[in-house]
Amino acid sequence: MDALSSKVGGSTLYLDRVRKIRRLMDEENIDIVMVTSEPNMLYFSGYSAISLERLITLLISRDEDKVSLIVPRLEEKRAEENCKLRDFELISYSDSENPIDILENIFSSKKQVRVGVEETIQFKYVYPLMSRLENINYSLVDGLLYSLRIVKDNEEAEILKKAAEINNRVLLEAIKSIREGITEKKLMMYIRNYALEIGADEVPFALVQSGANSALPHQEPTDRVILKGDTVVLDIGVRYQGYYSDLTRTVVCGSPSSKQIDIFNIVLNAQQNALNTVKEDVKAEDVDLAARRTIESSGYGEYFIHRTGHGIGLEVHEPPFIKTGNTGLLKSGMVFTIEPGIYLPGEFGVRIEDNIIVTREGYVNLAKLPKSMHIEDYEL
Amino acid sequence: MDALSSKVGGSTLYLDRVRKIRRLMDEENIDIVMVTSEPNMLYFSGYSAISLERLITLLISRDEDKVSLIVPRLEEKRAEENCKLRDFELISYSDSENPIDILENIFSSKKQVRVGVEETIQFKYVYPLMSRLENINYSLVDGLLYSLRIVKDNEEAEILKKAAEINNRVLLEAIKSIREGITEKKLMMYIRNYALEIGADEVPFALVQSGANSALPHQEPTDRVILKGDTVVLDIGVRYQGYYSDLTRTVVCGSPSSKQIDIFNIVLNAQQNALNTVKEDVKAEDVDLAARRTIESSGYGEYFIHRTGHGIGLEVHEPPFIKTGNTGLLKSGMVFTIEPGIYLPGEFGVRIEDNIIVTREGYVNLAKLPKSMHIEDYEL
Repeated sequence: MDALSSKVGGSTLYLDRVRKIRRLMDEENIDIVMVTSEPNMLYFSGYSAISLERLITLLISRDEDKVSLIVPRLEEKRAEENCKLRDFELISYSDSENPIDILENIFSSKKQVRVGVEETIQFKYVYPLMSRLENINYSLVDGLLYSLRIVKDNEEAEILKKAAEINNRVLLEAIKSIREGITEKKLMMYIRNYALEIGADEVPFALVQSGANSALPHQEPTDRVILKGDTVVLDIGVRYQGYYSDLTRTVVCGSPSSKQIDIFNIVLNAQQNALNTVKEDVKAEDVDLAARRTIESSGYGEYFIHRTGHGIGLEVHEPPFIKTGNTGLLKSGMVFTIEPGIYLPGEFGVRIEDNIIVTREGYVNLAKLPKSMHIEDYEL
Repeated sequence: MDALSSKVGGSTLYLDRVRKIRRLMDEENIDIVMVTSEPNMLYFSGYSAISLERLITLLISRDEDKVSLIVPRLEEKRAEENCKLRDFELISYSDSENPIDILENIFSSKKQVRVGVEETIQFKYVYPLMSRLENINYSLVDGLLYSLRIVKDNEEAEILKKAAEINNRVLLEAIKSIREGITEKKLMMYIRNYALEIGADEVPFALVQSGANSALPHQEPTDRVILKGDTVVLDIGVRYQGYYSDLTRTVVCGSPSSKQIDIFNIVLNAQQNALNTVKEDVKAEDVDLAARRTIESSGYGEYFIHRTGHGIGLEVHEPPFIKTGNTGLLKSGMVFTIEPGIYLPGEFGVRIEDNIIVTREGYVNLAKLPKSMHIEDYEL
């Protein structure tokens, strides 16, 4: 009997995912996949683990129908309670033990072992065994893992919708709370609280960029006071049951100048053109191109300094990346952002960002707020 | 003329640190150090950079008196403004370029190159060049970098004191805000806000663990309602100008039971014995041993499930680690936590944590709050 076959509670979801990755491991001739990132731990086990300085890893073997979870002693109880796989082997180690020895023990029991690791694994968990073991061969399996995760199943789509529902409400409340005299930081703090109060589990970012700060896409909120006439970019991320939403609106405090109106409209058109391109079997880069061409033909091409979008799920940024050079085809169930922007250094910037789920004929938009420089009277 | 020798503003601090690491690189025969972690970026350049999916690295060459900073285009402006080194070379790349090509270009210009990387560097930034280049040899330089960072200079000690000052106030306010009926999460949110309001730049954690949750040292705040008789562990981290403070107090909501009093006193004594051990040239493990022996001799040894402390600075956890097996000697200027605890599963836990700076004769304690189960009437 398959050691993982007991179908209790929600565990078949995770069991199915493990089975799918085993099939891919067969094709790629990978013996053990060493899951180390939080999103992949969540995806395969439901257990949210963050490796700070201590190794936490889920080892999925191809042959043995065995999944082993290695955790520091401190995490043992949480691992036991939260890992939703059945019949997994839990191995814990104390602060005076070296988890590399546990890995060495497992890997050295085989003649030749191809270990699939994630790109983000810290070098310290790979480097020691490279010299200690002769029979080991590392390869990167991110592509393999993402090939499962890139298309969301129904359970995931439902959670993503709920995450976006929360984020729509947060973003609207943020826009309603803009007033002359409030600082970016103050507004950010209010947004964070509000998001947690209405059900977000985490608020990975709540960017409030006003005036010239809005021209710096990654700028964290500062003590700058918002003034009449300022462009304000609000880019908010929330996490709900492991999944992210990432939405942006750009508004103006008071009356916009004709230049603000012009730039806003170019970005709005670019975003609409990108949205209109989306459906199953379209190339990802064609969505980028649709936005980019609109902005380029308006003469602002050099001020659109990032890609048009990124996938979103258990990570804020994940495949598919909506950028030039990505000739991969969109598939139903893929979820990503569409967020063109124009950034005029020293002046202001505009970005508009939705999250969409690809369908056969087009997309479902998870963003529910209108797109204009004044939406503070809107009600969800 | 040394390309880095212009002494403008606060830049000599960073220049000195680069010079020191070059001296160590000479000894260890390392040609290039590839700085990738945020704390080390801050330490050597004053520029706080977080590599999400894009590489950000500071390359310190041994021979060329050259420091190169490689950043994604999106970060170019922030890098320019925030890097406090003078005459550094800024190299940026767009989303359609691969930063590995830039590294390949730099490394392949040498005959043989020993590249020092950090343990935490993602495998994806190391793996590709292992196969592309024959002349490259990686080694881990964390020990080298920490050997500089482990002893804080005066500038750092001052910032650490300020971080602790903020944290003392936050922790006291948190304790004053405990009342029957409040949930752990609600209290956590209040603490986070309060910390940001009084000057913390970040609040990496604000653990509120009540009742049986206090027996789980890593448990995040839940919706559990705090009740009369509950043990409440408050473990708060704040960041200020890059540096961390990490303080814990354990209190009781209402009247403690005799068991709560007993356990509290054992931990209190263990912590005092550990503190009394600290001074220059004592072994780190002797501080751990002092706490551990106290708890063991009370019969609770198996419930003290972690080390006694950890260094604190640009990271929340960094060397020196105060644990069995660390025979390294304490030196003046080292800063670390002392935080023994006892955790009774299903019942409650107690932890008391200070942050101290080692001196020749003893230590300076950065924690200013008394240690008892009731300190809500205390004023700082």
